[in-house]
Amino acid sequence: MTPDLPALATAIVPPDETARTLAHARQLTLTKPTGALGRLEGLSAWVCAVQGQCPPQAFSEVRVVVFAGDHAVARRGVSAYPPEVTGQMVLNFVSGGAGVNVLARSAGATVRVVDMSVDVDYAALGAAIPDDVTAHRVRRGAADIAEGPAMSIEEATAAFEAGRSIADDEVDRGADLLIPGDMGIGNTTAAATLVSLLTSTDVAEVVGRGTGIDDEAWMRKCEVVRDAANRGRPLLADPLALLAEVAGPDLAAMTGFLVQAGVRRTPVLLDGLVSGACALVAHRIAHTAKGWWLAGHRSTEPAHARALERLGLEPVIDLGLRLGEGTGALVALPILQAAAATLAEMATFDEAGVSDKGA
Amino acid sequence: MTPDLPALATAIVPPDETARTLAHARQLTLTKPTGALGRLEGLSAWVCAVQGQCPPQAFSEVRVVVFAGDHAVARRGVSAYPPEVTGQMVLNFVSGGAGVNVLARSAGATVRVVDMSVDVDYAALGAAIPDDVTAHRVRRGAADIAEGPAMSIEEATAAFEAGRSIADDEVDRGADLLIPGDMGIGNTTAAATLVSLLTSTDVAEVVGRGTGIDDEAWMRKCEVVRDAANRGRPLLADPLALLAEVAGPDLAAMTGFLVQAGVRRTPVLLDGLVSGACALVAHRIAHTAKGWWLAGHRSTEPAHARALERLGLEPVIDLGLRLGEGTGALVALPILQAAAATLAEMATFDEAGVSDKGA
Repeated sequence: MTPDLPALATAIVPPDETARTLAHARQLTLTKPTGALGRLEGLSAWVCAVQGQCPPQAFSEVRVVVFAGDHAVARRGVSAYPPEVTGQMVLNFVSGGAGVNVLARSAGATVRVVDMSVDVDYAALGAAIPDDVTAHRVRRGAADIAEGPAMSIEEATAAFEAGRSIADDEVDRGADLLIPGDMGIGNTTAAATLVSLLTSTDVAEVVGRGTGIDDEAWMRKCEVVRDAANRGRPLLADPLALLAEVAGPDLAAMTGFLVQAGVRRTPVLLDGLVSGACALVAHRIAHTAKGWWLAGHRSTEPAHARALERLGLEPVIDLGLRLGEGTGALVALPILQAAAATLAEMATFDEAGVSDKGA
Repeated sequence: MTPDLPALATAIVPPDETARTLAHARQLTLTKPTGALGRLEGLSAWVCAVQGQCPPQAFSEVRVVVFAGDHAVARRGVSAYPPEVTGQMVLNFVSGGAGVNVLARSAGATVRVVDMSVDVDYAALGAAIPDDVTAHRVRRGAADIAEGPAMSIEEATAAFEAGRSIADDEVDRGADLLIPGDMGIGNTTAAATLVSLLTSTDVAEVVGRGTGIDDEAWMRKCEVVRDAANRGRPLLADPLALLAEVAGPDLAAMTGFLVQAGVRRTPVLLDGLVSGACALVAHRIAHTAKGWWLAGHRSTEPAHARALERLGLEPVIDLGLRLGEGTGALVALPILQAAAATLAEMATFDEAGVSDKGA
């Protein structure tokens, strides 16, 4: 069944502007010079707005959902790594050894991985995989977007709805902040195509080095993105058709996840290029969803900077990360928690008996 | 007794370059594209170098020492806040309500405040103050550097030695990472003077807005810094005489603290302008100390950017903070811990059975 996208859009209310205003007012009463916490002050106000309260609370159930999927286009040599890495990394996530696992532990978050379209037979690898990892798989690998659609409309719809249902699950289980992660050799090719289309930016300006490709692979990647973008351009008014043509089940699911987070009034800390590309699609579906999103970091992928610019989102950190998985958002997470803590816990001038400016 | 500065300099050995090399080699084996953790990779290598081991451990005893002191120059209206705020803030630190307390709790660090030269009578305020806060006080307030020396050479020496002894105390009690914090209305005037002198930068380029001053106060601050810098210039070859002329006991103590951290092979996460200015002086005393320092953040104070540039230190974050107290370093601390965690805990390609590049 096709989701009613206009109904989804109207179901999303913006965050609480009253709480945001109270946050800015409270910042002025804290024992520090006006504005001295810089970016942290705006972050604390965003936390108040999405929590609907001031002072805010620490986020206590931060959940990363890694959307994994293969992309047949990877066989054209647009990535520095072989396609089998996607499935191997899913196992790495499950056993807790990947970057996202380590950074989640460090920041007090938890990780769930969802195989939307990995081209792997785990049993053949001799690996046990929890059922909930594969329960939403739509197909084995997106088809080659250099040649034709990544998937059917039905598959795009199923993936989008799976992403929404995963967001619902996580919120129902108590998640108070969601982080979308990605894993998939070739997925930046699809993401760059979406960014090129949705920001009207020339292909050469959005195609990056992904996992670290050479000049020749970069040129191949540009060609693929140009061909896919040409097929996607007539579909700009139909987000699900666009995802079917140039993306893949992993990206379609992440898009549904971002939209549904807004429906559920649950904040999202965005990661890198793939989540930026999906955010552009989700923004097309529901402009109001953006109020629920914060950009965790800016990756080195040029398309990511372009996507953030178009969305008007200012990243928290810019540390040259380009790993995906949700890692950039996790590095930013303690800064967001610190911002909330200052607003909630710092003494006011009155409480501490400290003289204010001009006193 | 005057400290033997050349002996201090030779007592400082650089961090462990073998451990740093091992760290870079280990990064290449972890399950992620080469270089994909960006700045985190270099940070993890620095942690290995200062810990002398690879893989590294999380820092488990991170200690902020806030050096508090008044500056008579504040009475000239070079700050947006009245001078009595310094003593009031010391009490705020002791009761745990200041920004540095909140951010330390958030990042898993602890705070000690040392009154080196606050111009306050706590008893008259009706406030109980722990003995260890005031045990090192050298005088009540630095003298007005617009008119003459901030303190005598003897006082500068006593403060410098107190800073060294505080570093010794903290390392002996188990601190494995030190953060220098500052509190003192007027202290950015002294710090800007040091930066102007030690980086040969024109006064107007280094004087900032401190706690948030207007144009008229900014011009007064420039005048003061110019006068003090003129008196300090002939003393550039004698760091203790320079501190006596244009700084104050708080900055002299922080300088000793930074030097002694190097002697004790203990890493330091620098904060904002005041610690940057003291680092320039400490660097003049002992060039090798710098290997033990990492710049936590870049503040909005122009002199801070200049100091970091001269020291060749790249800050971890740049979030428009200008609170001092150690707060910028504390916001950066979780990123440093995250960097160490990735190197220590991520699975290697071999361990996870993931295919490497070109496999």
